[in-house]
Amino acid sequence: MSEINCPARAVRVACCQVRPIMGDANRSCDLLRAAVREAVAAGARLIVLPELCNTGYAFESRREARAAAQLAHGGVLDDWAEEAGTHAVVVGGFAEQGDDGTVYNSAAIVDGTGVLAVYRKAHLWNREALIFDRGDAPAPVLDTSIGRIGLMICYDLFVPEFTRGVALAGADIIVVPTNSPNTDAARSHDNIGVSIARATAHVNRVFVAVCDRWGTERGIQWVGRSVIADPDGDLLAGPAGDRPMCLMADCDLCRARDKRWSGTENDVFADLRPELYAQRGPTQGDRRP
Amino acid sequence: MSEINCPARAVRVACCQVRPIMGDANRSCDLLRAAVREAVAAGARLIVLPELCNTGYAFESRREARAAAQLAHGGVLDDWAEEAGTHAVVVGGFAEQGDDGTVYNSAAIVDGTGVLAVYRKAHLWNREALIFDRGDAPAPVLDTSIGRIGLMICYDLFVPEFTRGVALAGADIIVVPTNSPNTDAARSHDNIGVSIARATAHVNRVFVAVCDRWGTERGIQWVGRSVIADPDGDLLAGPAGDRPMCLMADCDLCRARDKRWSGTENDVFADLRPELYAQRGPTQGDRRP
Repeated sequence: MSEINCPARAVRVACCQVRPIMGDANRSCDLLRAAVREAVAAGARLIVLPELCNTGYAFESRREARAAAQLAHGGVLDDWAEEAGTHAVVVGGFAEQGDDGTVYNSAAIVDGTGVLAVYRKAHLWNREALIFDRGDAPAPVLDTSIGRIGLMICYDLFVPEFTRGVALAGADIIVVPTNSPNTDAARSHDNIGVSIARATAHVNRVFVAVCDRWGTERGIQWVGRSVIADPDGDLLAGPAGDRPMCLMADCDLCRARDKRWSGTENDVFADLRPELYAQRGPTQGDRRP
Repeated sequence: MSEINCPARAVRVACCQVRPIMGDANRSCDLLRAAVREAVAAGARLIVLPELCNTGYAFESRREARAAAQLAHGGVLDDWAEEAGTHAVVVGGFAEQGDDGTVYNSAAIVDGTGVLAVYRKAHLWNREALIFDRGDAPAPVLDTSIGRIGLMICYDLFVPEFTRGVALAGADIIVVPTNSPNTDAARSHDNIGVSIARATAHVNRVFVAVCDRWGTERGIQWVGRSVIADPDGDLLAGPAGDRPMCLMADCDLCRARDKRWSGTENDVFADLRPELYAQRGPTQGDRRP
């Protein structure tokens, strides 16, 4: 049974919170390459980059996004494969040119052999729906040399059904290329994204690595709140600060294969009672005398 | 359409974090009565009490729990109804004697007219499975004079499918009588319960009121981390401290009827894509060239 096989015990995970330069793909790609190289040199075996990290985020139109987008191979993905070498896996977000004029907010899992999987963001946030097409496939859960990687993008993490699906499919770590804008709402949320990352890790007993971006772009300021959480929901690293940085933590991915809560009789999957979760309207409850 | 009706605009919610006295039901009931009376006098219209608040938690056996339990009417529930008067609703946990020797970790919603709903904990935590029978009904979502109350108990809140069900059924506020033990795990979680309460509130745009207990009991120390979160996931009150106290916050329950994220195009329910959440095994993802 594959569940008892243990992935790598001490995987150094890096979230490289970079600052993409909108409109300057070359400089952005150089930044990303340097960040991945630095992380690999520091022993990282899983390097996570932000959402739309080679283009920037704040496209003004679908046309602008499409023009900046690339196919799901080559381009910046080749850079990452090259830097990954023989030991590392790189995950990052990019604008993807699809067929028939479509354009997606996508992310790829890449190793030294090339692109292993591509995911197109399924839950679009705010004005993204005006810019991007929506992905129609579940998030991938991919067996790699370092363990099973579940991949989603930013707002996807705010959908507990989606994260649960990835955990039930066997992910050891959910990696989340992210761009968290520092809107009034984000400020008032007191980094609710950090709470959601921790809660997701805890209730599914998986690792969660959120790689946020940094800097300002067309009037948007980004909060830069990358985090790496363990299956208890504890933060192994982060929240990152207001600067470009590679957040790193050593993750014993084997811990994510044991769904029991330490010190209890509980198992977060065995405890589930799907028969009680059917959708329903308002009820009057169970009235008693 | 009932969704556009607004419940009460400013409902003062109180989480009365008391210290039950194990083995002394009379003193516990007096404490609870005094707490509810004080909260009502302070203008609270929804008073939440902890899990198993009239008996204490740390039963050594099923037999001891059954002996301390009461039926789903009368007893301490009458006390709460009396103190609720004509304006308030009281929610609290109690040990319930069921038929055929069963005993449940239950909670009731009570107003001045008596018991409105009883819920039996469906997700038992740790050794509770040795002490209590497991409830087999979904959590109630009850229309009351102050708004729609969803009711669950402690560990139930850690099951996102369960909380989502209550939110989709129309709850304005999820109330959660709780006992959070300060185990090694709880300490290492850095109050993960607070993150989970905030995340639950945010992703469902509902209020969440967790009423924890305080004190030590048979060697268990309780963390006393009552919180009241709003639909942004912000804490309106708490986390409470290490003492008995009534945490209070004024909640504009109308906010929970609007599932849009403020300042965005998003609606947390309309954004859901159930077709992508079907359960599945590990996948190789969407391989690209």
